[in-house]
Amino acid sequence: MDHPLEFRPIQKWLLRKLGDGVAPARIRLQLATDGEAGYTGDAPVATVLIRDASTLARLILNLEIEFGEAYAEGRIEVEGDLPALVEAAFRAIPRKRMDTRYSKLASRWLQWTQQNSLHGSRQNIHRHYDLNVDFYKLWLDSRLVYTCAYFANDAMTLEEAQLSKMDYVCRKLQLRPGETVVEAGCGWGALALYMAQNYGVSVKAFNISSEQIAFARQQTKLAGLGDRVEFIQDDYRNISGQYDAFVSVGMLEHVGKAHHDEMKRVIGRSMKKSSRGLLHFIGRNQPQQLNAWIRKRIFPGGYPPTLREAVGLMEPLNLSVLDVENLRMHYAWTLEHWLARFEQSADRVEEMFGREFVRQWRLYLAGSIAGFRSGSMQLFQLVFAGSECQSIPSTRNHLYDNQRSREKGLKWMHATP
Amino acid sequence: MDHPLEFRPIQKWLLRKLGDGVAPARIRLQLATDGEAGYTGDAPVATVLIRDASTLARLILNLEIEFGEAYAEGRIEVEGDLPALVEAAFRAIPRKRMDTRYSKLASRWLQWTQQNSLHGSRQNIHRHYDLNVDFYKLWLDSRLVYTCAYFANDAMTLEEAQLSKMDYVCRKLQLRPGETVVEAGCGWGALALYMAQNYGVSVKAFNISSEQIAFARQQTKLAGLGDRVEFIQDDYRNISGQYDAFVSVGMLEHVGKAHHDEMKRVIGRSMKKSSRGLLHFIGRNQPQQLNAWIRKRIFPGGYPPTLREAVGLMEPLNLSVLDVENLRMHYAWTLEHWLARFEQSADRVEEMFGREFVRQWRLYLAGSIAGFRSGSMQLFQLVFAGSECQSIPSTRNHLYDNQRSREKGLKWMHATP
Repeated sequence: MDHPLEFRPIQKWLLRKLGDGVAPARIRLQLATDGEAGYTGDAPVATVLIRDASTLARLILNLEIEFGEAYAEGRIEVEGDLPALVEAAFRAIPRKRMDTRYSKLASRWLQWTQQNSLHGSRQNIHRHYDLNVDFYKLWLDSRLVYTCAYFANDAMTLEEAQLSKMDYVCRKLQLRPGETVVEAGCGWGALALYMAQNYGVSVKAFNISSEQIAFARQQTKLAGLGDRVEFIQDDYRNISGQYDAFVSVGMLEHVGKAHHDEMKRVIGRSMKKSSRGLLHFIGRNQPQQLNAWIRKRIFPGGYPPTLREAVGLMEPLNLSVLDVENLRMHYAWTLEHWLARFEQSADRVEEMFGREFVRQWRLYLAGSIAGFRSGSMQLFQLVFAGSECQSIPSTRNHLYDNQRSREKGLKWMHATP
Repeated sequence: MDHPLEFRPIQKWLLRKLGDGVAPARIRLQLATDGEAGYTGDAPVATVLIRDASTLARLILNLEIEFGEAYAEGRIEVEGDLPALVEAAFRAIPRKRMDTRYSKLASRWLQWTQQNSLHGSRQNIHRHYDLNVDFYKLWLDSRLVYTCAYFANDAMTLEEAQLSKMDYVCRKLQLRPGETVVEAGCGWGALALYMAQNYGVSVKAFNISSEQIAFARQQTKLAGLGDRVEFIQDDYRNISGQYDAFVSVGMLEHVGKAHHDEMKRVIGRSMKKSSRGLLHFIGRNQPQQLNAWIRKRIFPGGYPPTLREAVGLMEPLNLSVLDVENLRMHYAWTLEHWLARFEQSADRVEEMFGREFVRQWRLYLAGSIAGFRSGSMQLFQLVFAGSECQSIPSTRNHLYDNQRSREKGLKWMHATP
């Protein structure tokens, strides 16, 4: 073994210490070279196999980052259900116990190096969203909707649930033909195209990912929607003009707490007194940094706000909050679909980006499932309106009008752009 | 005339100044002794007749309080639609313009004299809710539900809309037979009885109004629900025990900003990790004191919080916000019903409490209609849950299941306690 800790009593002590750290989760720990710790009863959620004592020591110093690093590099193996393992850990380990001096320092270092300045945001977004589109095609739905789907009923496939989410957003916004919409952060363009095609609106959609914008423009041509949808490769902070509706799905959590004020100003100047808006974002019950490993490897600069923080954007603008819905379990289900598809294509992904990448993304998807299942993360849809908006119905019946949904349902199935 | 300002040029100047103050509202001002000001075009919303120059001077010093005082005492007459007049004023007059040095002082004086200490709350609540129940019977629905109704469809009567609100609250909370519910601020007990009768739960309901508790206990006996509903004449701050559901309809706006922290602690200790809660309250888009005249004459100690402030109660408790709905227009409609019934019984009310009381309450009801119509006030229903609550469905379909509503509808109509 190449680790510096050959002395067995120290290894055992460290292993026990880590075992105490994850209690009372039913997680079994096993050091490959020697010894076991953690839960010793029947039916453990999973067993974590730690390949060497050096990894063990690093886990104790900074569990939050080192678990991900070690798992990705294969210095840890998990026997059993990976999402269930992380969920058990989330439920069992109080936040405070994770905060060692070293882990706090590492977390601050990430915050400092991943700032969402105009330049920083471009880098942060580039790292995740400019990966080859063929990679995302392997495990997202056919329209590449990379945000929480809406499973209006249990029988829905991922394809249907993403369509149902987009339609739900349009109905929450009460879009009408001829209206103008601005979209802040548009991914590969599916929602912008859906709104234009099914609700007859004109859309300006902003995104700083060059790969995504290129794909979205291609789709626009294929769908013949060039007169109604414009994809603009620029930062949300450069949005200008006023619109009937402001929509942002899955971007607020990338904005970062330090830039909420800029986001507020963008919303404020984009909306008329009669406009409506919708923010769909990953949130929290309580203010908390995004998991440090996720920030390091997956979403640099990310920060899921609390509902209080998000509603705080509306207050200075005198906007009325009309509707908030928490769809946390829908994101767990969405991620389960993604993870299953990802696993089916794991060999192909390994050819593209190597084994470490596969393990990183497997852990990211599994960990996100755990986050939404355990309630460590929430998913909020927030509808708001200018002080003189008259166009949102006074009940939410229109969101659950089954006759209408059924008719729309037929259209959806044939509306692939 | 007995006013100190006989000099006509001063009167004219004051009248013009008041006219500028309410511009650009289409409100015509007329001083009975002399002169006109304000809007001079066609189709004014209403004409305000000011009986003497002393009233005119006081309106300029503190429009917020003096309009109500002068209207109640008959020193002002309104020709035209009273709610429309107040609505036009709310829309036209920016908050800042109302804040004279004198009005700020008066507002602070009210805050200081109307504090919601345990003793202060009893006094504040006594003044409004301990009025003779026969008075409220004249213009509320038959169950005396004195909070915003829910008009699930346009055809609903007030009776139906109050039943539909109570059922909506129960469905949002997903109450199940055998569960325990605590209600903070229960009015005359309609919701507590409804929950027990239609959802089979056991309810402890708190209220410091002796008149309301006496009435509620009487209703409990009549309905034979004594084994399942307990009405407790005590302050919400003295709630003890843990419950499956926490519900408070129309109380948070009486709590006062200075006591939000106490309210938070009550919610925190009443809920288990699996419990659900619902707050239904009058709110604001932006932090703002309640209208000073309303505090002086109608709701001493009242403060409608913003959604950010209300959600701020949940955050330190690690509660998940599941659903927020803004029902502002439903309160305008509810108040329109109340005002119309009130007017039908105005003679009877005058016999009971005198002419000034009738005019105070007419202005309060009309002004509240204006507040909700103009968006100066909001009505929020906020559903939240402990971190391990599994019992709220993942979609809101259950709130809009028409088959179920229709069946329930039959029951409601015969379920008068």
